[in-house]
Amino acid sequence: MVETVEWTDDGVLLIDQTQLPRERVYVTCKTHEEVAVAITDMIVRGAPAIGVTAAMGVARGVLETDAAELPAAFPKILERLANTRPTAVNLFWALERMRAVYDSVASEPIDAIRERMVAEAKQIKIEDIAINQAMGRFGAELIPDNSTVLTHCNAGALATAGYGTALGVIRAAVSAGKKIDVFADETRPFLQGARLTAWELQQDGIPVTLITDNMAGHFMKAGRIGCVVVGADRIAANGDVANKIGTYSVAVLAKENGIPFYVAAPISTIDLALETGDEIPIEERASREVTHVGGVELAPAGISVANPAFDVTPNRYVTAIITERGVARNPYNQNLREIVEGKA
Amino acid sequence: MVETVEWTDDGVLLIDQTQLPRERVYVTCKTHEEVAVAITDMIVRGAPAIGVTAAMGVARGVLETDAAELPAAFPKILERLANTRPTAVNLFWALERMRAVYDSVASEPIDAIRERMVAEAKQIKIEDIAINQAMGRFGAELIPDNSTVLTHCNAGALATAGYGTALGVIRAAVSAGKKIDVFADETRPFLQGARLTAWELQQDGIPVTLITDNMAGHFMKAGRIGCVVVGADRIAANGDVANKIGTYSVAVLAKENGIPFYVAAPISTIDLALETGDEIPIEERASREVTHVGGVELAPAGISVANPAFDVTPNRYVTAIITERGVARNPYNQNLREIVEGKA
Repeated sequence: MVETVEWTDDGVLLIDQTQLPRERVYVTCKTHEEVAVAITDMIVRGAPAIGVTAAMGVARGVLETDAAELPAAFPKILERLANTRPTAVNLFWALERMRAVYDSVASEPIDAIRERMVAEAKQIKIEDIAINQAMGRFGAELIPDNSTVLTHCNAGALATAGYGTALGVIRAAVSAGKKIDVFADETRPFLQGARLTAWELQQDGIPVTLITDNMAGHFMKAGRIGCVVVGADRIAANGDVANKIGTYSVAVLAKENGIPFYVAAPISTIDLALETGDEIPIEERASREVTHVGGVELAPAGISVANPAFDVTPNRYVTAIITERGVARNPYNQNLREIVEGKA
Repeated sequence: MVETVEWTDDGVLLIDQTQLPRERVYVTCKTHEEVAVAITDMIVRGAPAIGVTAAMGVARGVLETDAAELPAAFPKILERLANTRPTAVNLFWALERMRAVYDSVASEPIDAIRERMVAEAKQIKIEDIAINQAMGRFGAELIPDNSTVLTHCNAGALATAGYGTALGVIRAAVSAGKKIDVFADETRPFLQGARLTAWELQQDGIPVTLITDNMAGHFMKAGRIGCVVVGADRIAANGDVANKIGTYSVAVLAKENGIPFYVAAPISTIDLALETGDEIPIEERASREVTHVGGVELAPAGISVANPAFDVTPNRYVTAIITERGVARNPYNQNLREIVEGKA
């Protein structure tokens, strides 16, 4: 499996996810500005991967700034990286974590500051993989044996520092000896399912069938799907889940057909500051993502397009939320808070 | 507006719908075999348009066959055209109508037979346009004023001999002075919404916004959609509706959000021989339609794909079925039969 994001002496090394699976192109972001552009352009995507990459972007910013200018420059570095994508809260969580560490070492010599910031960014990456593995262990128990798991978008190794959230749960279930196969929604417009999830699972030898998004309901009604597992970009205190556009539709169809709908996400995705999902900002992206596929224009020129990148699934459709500290169920208001605050 | 299908002395003239909207390429099918291939390859598609085209294909078959061979060849001509696409019943309805006319004139001189078959095929086309206009008048009353209509696939002029079923209802509502705009699902994998519906409405100056299939639920939940209107490929006696893959999902999401879900289809789409939608054969098409878009391969090579071209929406999700003889509602078993048998 390729590395999603890696710290190197030359910069933050990313595999260009806009080019997969056809080409393995790597991009080295030398500056925090280059990291910010890579996040906006979805060279790297997936809430946890964005968090790790942004943390490394902060470290690059600290390395590239003169000691005398750093106190004034540091908030601007954070701001630049924050102004990339609005929905995934892991981005802001990672920036806040880097800010707190910076504050704690700001009075030390510049070499010590730099060393500490780089170490923290690397540490966030290491933790992310461990978190996904823990999530996998909790989630694997929920997956019915001898069944098909439907997933949407890519919540895999490529959406994280490695192993994946939803795909981590699937990998853990397979490792535990469960006989499962996967149906992957292609996930228009960016096709993360067709390009990334199908590819990741194919590489792992986990049986996967690619479908278009509008087929998921048909296969649920036909009794073909045992459960749904997806990732998340932000979860409100009440358990409302923002995730890739189309997740809400999958959740409604799962409920209508009596199929469990699971969300796998690290604690860093939970935003207790927001009471409900209505408060989660939804990114609107360029119309070209809808009108063009693989560089080919499909729709008539000049057509109006809507392109919300995410939607919000109300908590009543969510069977359980799988975190690295355990599984939360309704009432989410109480149970998510207990998990986040470590009481679960 | 272009002609979908036209009878000419040289053959059946079709606009190649696989090339729209980028190019206006016309194909002339000289033989019934060429007509059959054009239907299978979706040069022409849409249940009513397939019916009209198949009828013209039968007429071509009669023209191309020697008088002495016609009695033996005629059933084979019908069989060849029947073995093109299994789901839309309008195809079989049109072939049966041509067979009945043939039987009634089989003992006449060959010139009279040929003239009669060509006239009948032309008549089916003329009737189809009139049927769509009648459907439009009934349907227009159901469309809420100052609202957005969501549609799926293309049930427009290009899916019929002209005017359209679902888009006919929308055109009639606009003609009646209602202020409506349209959200068009792009409709993967064949992209009839992005390529054909968006283009048709753009040409007519009816405001249209293109969305990916997985966005429809999001906009319904947001209160953006006033009603849904789609076409149909086959309707069972109990009101279960087979239509383009994804229709079932749209219907479930509409019901969940309290939005009326209307089906516009001619009587020829209603198959009283089938008790429920479970008996409707669902065509499985080539995986390449999913893995490649505009000639570009998007998914990893060798990936497994499912590609059912249609799904079945159970009658409980269908608010009303709009036909050229009026609007049927639950209980469909009784009301559809009355409409078909002319008692409504």
